[in-house]
Amino acid sequence: MNTPTFRNWQSVQSEVLRRIHAREWPPGELIPNEADLAIEFGCARSTVNRALRSLAESGLLDRRRKAGTRVAAQPVAKATIDIAVIRHEVEEHGAKYGYQLITRRIAVPPVSVSGTMKTRAQDKLLHVRALHLADDAAYAVEDRWINTAIVPDAAAEPFDVLSANEWLIEHAPYTHGDISFSAVQADQGDAEVLGVAPLSALFAIDRVTWDNAAAVTKVRLLFLPGYKLRTQL
Amino acid sequence: MNTPTFRNWQSVQSEVLRRIHAREWPPGELIPNEADLAIEFGCARSTVNRALRSLAESGLLDRRRKAGTRVAAQPVAKATIDIAVIRHEVEEHGAKYGYQLITRRIAVPPVSVSGTMKTRAQDKLLHVRALHLADDAAYAVEDRWINTAIVPDAAAEPFDVLSANEWLIEHAPYTHGDISFSAVQADQGDAEVLGVAPLSALFAIDRVTWDNAAAVTKVRLLFLPGYKLRTQL
Repeated sequence: MNTPTFRNWQSVQSEVLRRIHAREWPPGELIPNEADLAIEFGCARSTVNRALRSLAESGLLDRRRKAGTRVAAQPVAKATIDIAVIRHEVEEHGAKYGYQLITRRIAVPPVSVSGTMKTRAQDKLLHVRALHLADDAAYAVEDRWINTAIVPDAAAEPFDVLSANEWLIEHAPYTHGDISFSAVQADQGDAEVLGVAPLSALFAIDRVTWDNAAAVTKVRLLFLPGYKLRTQL
Repeated sequence: MNTPTFRNWQSVQSEVLRRIHAREWPPGELIPNEADLAIEFGCARSTVNRALRSLAESGLLDRRRKAGTRVAAQPVAKATIDIAVIRHEVEEHGAKYGYQLITRRIAVPPVSVSGTMKTRAQDKLLHVRALHLADDAAYAVEDRWINTAIVPDAAAEPFDVLSANEWLIEHAPYTHGDISFSAVQADQGDAEVLGVAPLSALFAIDRVTWDNAAAVTKVRLLFLPGYKLRTQL
């Protein structure tokens, strides 16, 4: 047999993944049991177990206690997206990062915001609009509401040098977040700030982060036309 | 001490994640060593190890052999996106899925496509355009090039009932893929097919899948305005 020896679970996982993608093990097929795979791969059974568990967690295998392990019949490809601080994203592309505060005010948010953040309709929140730049050109506009009942320190922050995007990472607690990606047409205000034609198609990232049941912040980031969020499958 | 007993690595991971997000362990901070955490959590040291390893893999912890484990100073939030077959995505929203083939032809692709797919400029590929529907309304338009040198069976497929989106999952091998998300303005053709105004902002998913060094297929999916790709942090 030509199968090389697999020394760690990652290499076993790669080989199993290769067989799934190459359709040597097509969707729905029962794969050999762990003991047989351990013999074939020349490794410990626990190594095979670790690799199969990891693939089951990512939805590529269906594991049943008695019925064995099958290749998922309706595979869902999982793509992982890194959500970095904008400064790091800009600097990673080799550009010079810049930041400009547009407005900072305490205000009662529109009901669409208080509804999403589950604050009371009359509660005032901190509203910050700012521009992120790459090599002195507009890169993204940030429109953010901060719940100062949850992050009281934010009320004292001017956000004139350090962005809320960056400040919150260091100072705000959160337990989980909702994120969505969409395409929106630039309104007059965003078009002017970004220096693009009104109705341009902008990539939008909407994010709400939560500290248990309370919303910490809600932010919309609108990126210049041409922006692509890339990853691998 | 009030700390409950942690029975498995997932519950240890949740607790560590909670401490990181709640800033009990702030960015850059050295966390207790595995042996101390095992005592605190009332579990095996290997359970703590498994949990920390998983968090290091997702970029939240920095582990150094001698220097111990620190909370990552520049945490990158990772969002996992499920890329399902469009039929499943529509059906998961409780809608009726529909499919219409628009065109199917063998053609020399534009250089932008042959360049990306790394095929020779004069090579003919299979070009399929199709509409995906939800409850009889347009949902997404698919524009796809298939490399029949890699997937010869595709040349015999009419794609009039079963979409290439679905057929390829069952029949085409792949080893890896590149995916990107962006916002584009609808051109005249896409606007007509989707029944929207020209220049509408459309959410675009571009994907190229590879079988080792050869491109299997390149597809652009354009979704109706209002489409959101959602996930959790």
